[in-house]
Amino acid sequence: MLTLDKVYHAKYVLKEAIRDTDMLYAPKIRSDCEVYLKAENLQITGSFKLRGAYYKMSQLTEEERAHGVIACSAGNHAQGVALAAQKSGIKATICLPDNAPISKIEMTKSYGAKVELVEGVYDDAYKKAVEMASEHGYTFIHPFDDECVIAGQGTIGLEIIEQLPGVQAVVVPIGGGGLISGVAYAIKSLNPSIKVYGVQAAGAPSMKNSVMDGHITSLSSVSTIADGIAVKTPGTLTYDICSKYVDGIVTVSDDEISAAILALMEQHKLVTEGAGAVAVAAVMFGKLPVKGLKTVCLLSGGNIDVTILSRVITRGLIMSGRMCQMTIELTDKPGQLKTVATLIADLGGNVIGVHHEHTNEGSAVTGCYLSLTMETRNAEHIEQIKKALSERGFRITHH
Amino acid sequence: MLTLDKVYHAKYVLKEAIRDTDMLYAPKIRSDCEVYLKAENLQITGSFKLRGAYYKMSQLTEEERAHGVIACSAGNHAQGVALAAQKSGIKATICLPDNAPISKIEMTKSYGAKVELVEGVYDDAYKKAVEMASEHGYTFIHPFDDECVIAGQGTIGLEIIEQLPGVQAVVVPIGGGGLISGVAYAIKSLNPSIKVYGVQAAGAPSMKNSVMDGHITSLSSVSTIADGIAVKTPGTLTYDICSKYVDGIVTVSDDEISAAILALMEQHKLVTEGAGAVAVAAVMFGKLPVKGLKTVCLLSGGNIDVTILSRVITRGLIMSGRMCQMTIELTDKPGQLKTVATLIADLGGNVIGVHHEHTNEGSAVTGCYLSLTMETRNAEHIEQIKKALSERGFRITHH
Repeated sequence: MLTLDKVYHAKYVLKEAIRDTDMLYAPKIRSDCEVYLKAENLQITGSFKLRGAYYKMSQLTEEERAHGVIACSAGNHAQGVALAAQKSGIKATICLPDNAPISKIEMTKSYGAKVELVEGVYDDAYKKAVEMASEHGYTFIHPFDDECVIAGQGTIGLEIIEQLPGVQAVVVPIGGGGLISGVAYAIKSLNPSIKVYGVQAAGAPSMKNSVMDGHITSLSSVSTIADGIAVKTPGTLTYDICSKYVDGIVTVSDDEISAAILALMEQHKLVTEGAGAVAVAAVMFGKLPVKGLKTVCLLSGGNIDVTILSRVITRGLIMSGRMCQMTIELTDKPGQLKTVATLIADLGGNVIGVHHEHTNEGSAVTGCYLSLTMETRNAEHIEQIKKALSERGFRITHH
Repeated sequence: MLTLDKVYHAKYVLKEAIRDTDMLYAPKIRSDCEVYLKAENLQITGSFKLRGAYYKMSQLTEEERAHGVIACSAGNHAQGVALAAQKSGIKATICLPDNAPISKIEMTKSYGAKVELVEGVYDDAYKKAVEMASEHGYTFIHPFDDECVIAGQGTIGLEIIEQLPGVQAVVVPIGGGGLISGVAYAIKSLNPSIKVYGVQAAGAPSMKNSVMDGHITSLSSVSTIADGIAVKTPGTLTYDICSKYVDGIVTVSDDEISAAILALMEQHKLVTEGAGAVAVAAVMFGKLPVKGLKTVCLLSGGNIDVTILSRVITRGLIMSGRMCQMTIELTDKPGQLKTVATLIADLGGNVIGVHHEHTNEGSAVTGCYLSLTMETRNAEHIEQIKKALSERGFRITHH
């Protein structure tokens, strides 16, 4: 049974292992409510996962500690378990699917864990981890469906209440549900009038569906840039706690998540991964009834691959009208490129990429396509440029 | 005269206006010293500038307050002055060169300042600001060469000593020298045994040159991605304080700055601008005698344009061997592309961009060029791929 005692005990134990992460006022996320960010992306290992993993290990028996632990994850849980084990002097093995990004493998190894690469996908790695646990007597550290893990994550709830007196709503990402279970349980136990909302990726709404259906349901597939919360089936414990304590669950799209990641970088100088930005996305795009409320968005983690981040920035710029890609059909005569370039420059567009192709399939033999990438001010500015091009007889074939 | 009293008074006054920014342990920046990050990029307005500007305004007379203030800046100082004025109930005018980025103009306006766009470059805007100050009786808020401004920035020195007992070295970016003057003065006054080092961009070493020459010298031009510290001439006050209190000044290249920005994003989930990352760059690349020392790198700001950030990420990935662009000469016969693609895939390279051009100037009539962008593991991995391509008879024309 999860109790408030356990969460407070976790807080006591975690003092030696974790950082009390910052609470940042974020007035520009949304003007009609008072938004704060709980920056667990700045937690050691770049996510909240260390909390649950470390507390879980502190509760193992001497014998269990001697045998070591095992976990399965390609992401934050792997790093949380690896570092928690290192700090606790326990041997850890992490099963990873063999297609996991090199950076995550290296990071997990850097915390001293033994990495076991398993051919196949996550489910194969999970199966292997369970096998190895029974074969070698390792304790399997579940990423979310475990009372101690949940109690560990719940310490964030206690911190929120301490750091922000008068908080009225807390918005939390949901994957398997471990984080929100701990946070909602702690907060509601102390003050049931504080609202706790969950956010899932639109491409992985397993907890939302389960709570709506009134029983645990599984998704056959998941697809989202928020890979940290791409979970097919909620936990049993976490489903029960969410059903009881969470005031509502909403979803956000990949585009909304990208816009939130970009806003957090630009306005708050914080790097978040997809899963880490969903709470902000939900508030930014008005998915939740938090108007006028003192609202905390929990940034759960920041472990995003920088190449993906580069693409997210581009996507976010395009979404906000600050970057624009268009393809223009040109007739194959001299001076056309110059005319287009002049027109765009005169209107204040800043061309940053050009691809000019004569042999493009689909173009008339005498025509060609000019693909442009430019920096623009906003959507209106783009329309102005498109209109000017059209008026000069240029056909825009793709935008 | 700058006194420790003034810095403490600034700290008292600033309590109502600024955030006590976080101090983050950063074990992966460099293994042979104990690195901490003072995250002023998380300060309100995204840089430390609010401190000096707010304290300066608090020290104006009633008459001066009634007339309003003026400043000239295209960057962090503009935002610092604008917000400080808004919080102090003072009217502010900011002169900006008319080619300033739209985002900076909008941000300055959003803090309630009146923006005056001046045709030309920074120097023109500066001249205009001084003119307007004398014409309208505005108080000119200097970005660095002002005792109150320096005292305000010095509060960071007090915070560092409080937050990190036993600190042995503090590394600080230098542009005009306001930040390091305040920090060095406060720290050295309290404990002269703590080392204070300054870092400038290699393309703008005005304070370094001046201190070396023994008198203030001006650069005829500056060029660096760290635009926040691209200053041609140090201040008079700041030159004197730096000469007296700073233990050494080093420079870092744009490539080193890019690598530091990337490391801060990946390892610490913090967005920094070029100027904000120079202290970390200097420590990462071994420019300073801090081996074994408890060392604070001051991250001065995070206001980097996201399109530049995108380019910095790419540059940083290329520098660390995790991305690679190469152009391969192909003979114009079927199957060549397939051979190259297979070879790279077999070696674990991940192709993310292809440009295949037959009509490339400079290629033989029967040949063509294949430009590839791929994700790689490290420099060694790239060499392995290049070697394998060479062994199969492909000529790499550009890398």
